[in-house]
Amino acid sequence: MARVSQAHLDARRRQILDAAALCFARNGFHATSMQDVLKEADLSAGAVYRYFSGKDELIAAIVSEVLGGVRAAFEEAARQSPPPPLDLLVASVLGRTLAARESLIVDGVPAFPRLVVQAWSEIPRNAELAAVLREGYDSVRAAWGLIVEGYQQAGRMRTDIAPDHVARTMIAAVTGFIAQQALFGPAPVDVLRDGLRALMSVPAEQPRPTGSPLG
Amino acid sequence: MARVSQAHLDARRRQILDAAALCFARNGFHATSMQDVLKEADLSAGAVYRYFSGKDELIAAIVSEVLGGVRAAFEEAARQSPPPPLDLLVASVLGRTLAARESLIVDGVPAFPRLVVQAWSEIPRNAELAAVLREGYDSVRAAWGLIVEGYQQAGRMRTDIAPDHVARTMIAAVTGFIAQQALFGPAPVDVLRDGLRALMSVPAEQPRPTGSPLG
Repeated sequence: MARVSQAHLDARRRQILDAAALCFARNGFHATSMQDVLKEADLSAGAVYRYFSGKDELIAAIVSEVLGGVRAAFEEAARQSPPPPLDLLVASVLGRTLAARESLIVDGVPAFPRLVVQAWSEIPRNAELAAVLREGYDSVRAAWGLIVEGYQQAGRMRTDIAPDHVARTMIAAVTGFIAQQALFGPAPVDVLRDGLRALMSVPAEQPRPTGSPLG
Repeated sequence: MARVSQAHLDARRRQILDAAALCFARNGFHATSMQDVLKEADLSAGAVYRYFSGKDELIAAIVSEVLGGVRAAFEEAARQSPPPPLDLLVASVLGRTLAARESLIVDGVPAFPRLVVQAWSEIPRNAELAAVLREGYDSVRAAWGLIVEGYQQAGRMRTDIAPDHVARTMIAAVTGFIAQQALFGPAPVDVLRDGLRALMSVPAEQPRPTGSPLG
């Protein structure tokens, strides 16, 4: 076999993962065959199987790559003291995650949100994918927990609520927003940023009088 | 045909919908056959096809029923002035939605969250289901928009943010929390309620000094 550069190997791997992502987003995981992926990637079976043993490994690699990027972004935020404001942090990380995949288009809309929902639907029947997703979720949840502790320590969030509950709520808001895009089409991340910002202006315990500085 | 009471018809319809929900949650929409649904419901083909023409009609009926209940709950909240506190409202509606289906168990966990994710994954390939989900989403989103306007008019939320952005963010948080349960197992709605409550304590624009009344 001819010697090939790492850059070439990486580009080939990227080409295969993107082709698989498009196929899964377009037709769902079940209805996609490896033949479909080869055709989409315009590569031979030999070229593809050198990298991935099959669909299970492809979907696991795609999910792992996405969650790895998200995890790194939130771990970076957790190291700042205090962490960046919550609305801006969410918009920044989600915006970058979507932008990195915006060239992947299916049926005229971004493929990524659909791909996420397809991966979720596969979880009950795919233990390997479930393990990858679980590990990624746990690490993002842990990073968010640290961020929340940072807010609490800086006096920017009430301290009588478990950081993990806030972490789960933030992950829910972001993943639910991605699901919305899969179901109803693209939306700017500003929608979510604004919504979080509005929530941040609500008094939780008791109504403030009309005309308060927050009104 | 013998005359049967409306109560009997309703009970039979319920029996079929619950059986279908279990099958879809367990094996996914694609891998479920009408034969599976008949077997789960312990009914003859004639008994089932009298109510539903096939899988497409079953999943549309299930989704329509869920969204109808959610819509009614939020429309009721929108009529109150001011609307109930956001964290309590979400916990109450989601709690009732989950509780109404808690007897449906698959693989030892509640079937409902998995069913939701299965329905989402079916959207790109099922125009009828997409229309039902879209209509339900639009109505819930409109009701949430009115609730947000109620908060804003009562001086309980900043008024410079479009109510629809808050509506979409709230729907995202709830649906994302349901997806979390589908992927990682059941969690009390208190987690989401606490998370929202904590968000409501964050100053949006600039850090407050440590030791502020919110800290």
